[in-house]
Amino acid sequence: MKYYSYEDFKIDTRSLIDRVKGSNFEALVAVARGGLTLSHAIAEGLDIRQVQSVRTELYDKTLKRDMLNIFDTCQLDGVKKVLVVDDIADSGDTLRAVMEYLEEKYKDIEFASCTLFYKKTSVYEPHFWINEADDWIDFFWERDFL
Amino acid sequence: MKYYSYEDFKIDTRSLIDRVKGSNFEALVAVARGGLTLSHAIAEGLDIRQVQSVRTELYDKTLKRDMLNIFDTCQLDGVKKVLVVDDIADSGDTLRAVMEYLEEKYKDIEFASCTLFYKKTSVYEPHFWINEADDWIDFFWERDFL
Repeated sequence: MKYYSYEDFKIDTRSLIDRVKGSNFEALVAVARGGLTLSHAIAEGLDIRQVQSVRTELYDKTLKRDMLNIFDTCQLDGVKKVLVVDDIADSGDTLRAVMEYLEEKYKDIEFASCTLFYKKTSVYEPHFWINEADDWIDFFWERDFL
Repeated sequence: MKYYSYEDFKIDTRSLIDRVKGSNFEALVAVARGGLTLSHAIAEGLDIRQVQSVRTELYDKTLKRDMLNIFDTCQLDGVKKVLVVDDIADSGDTLRAVMEYLEEKYKDIEFASCTLFYKKTSVYEPHFWINEADDWIDFFWERDFL
């Protein structure tokens, strides 16, 4: 297990901002909770005022494949390019489901995704990611406030 | 102007979590963007899964009193106690307007508010706050990603 500090986050998030800034996203959708702090930092770095969120919840874990509920409170009318923000694509199930859901719901919006970490075994690869994860990541926001 | 670092934030947010945890809030509403990182930390510290957000925008600044638009994408059905989270009550206009709006919209929900900073000249005092602000606060999330 690797502790991922705010200092690490600052460096990586600046890199991520450099990578995404050419795409001129107009709004961010944070996958709660993991993507909240990152979406705030990206929004400040790129001066994007629209930050919304979706929440997911696993249900019926007895099934072979975990099923996801997506609680969507986004209102994205009028925007053309949206960046979906999460901390990690681990199994990738969550982010893949969120992207499929949003693309189906908003057919006129172009979506891309970004994470700080990506695992090679993930079923979904974000459009932008910074680090390959080969261990469990202990994000500072999951550790520092307990 | 005072730089407010992540280390300061960590200490203050832990204090804030200690102050609010007895109230058993079921959901958080972050005032975007300022309240996003704080709401993430509080949600992790108290294991609250529901984090939603509202966004405000000033309009018609030519009027004597700035007017606010509130972009509300909250869905709070089924919860009883909600904590509204922002970084600072400065003029207090934003937080007062958000609280009035939410209390009017969800008459069965009990709302409370919290911030890290409170200015004595604010028109609104949050239910929970940590520091009195006597200077402009340069929050790390507004500085570190530019």
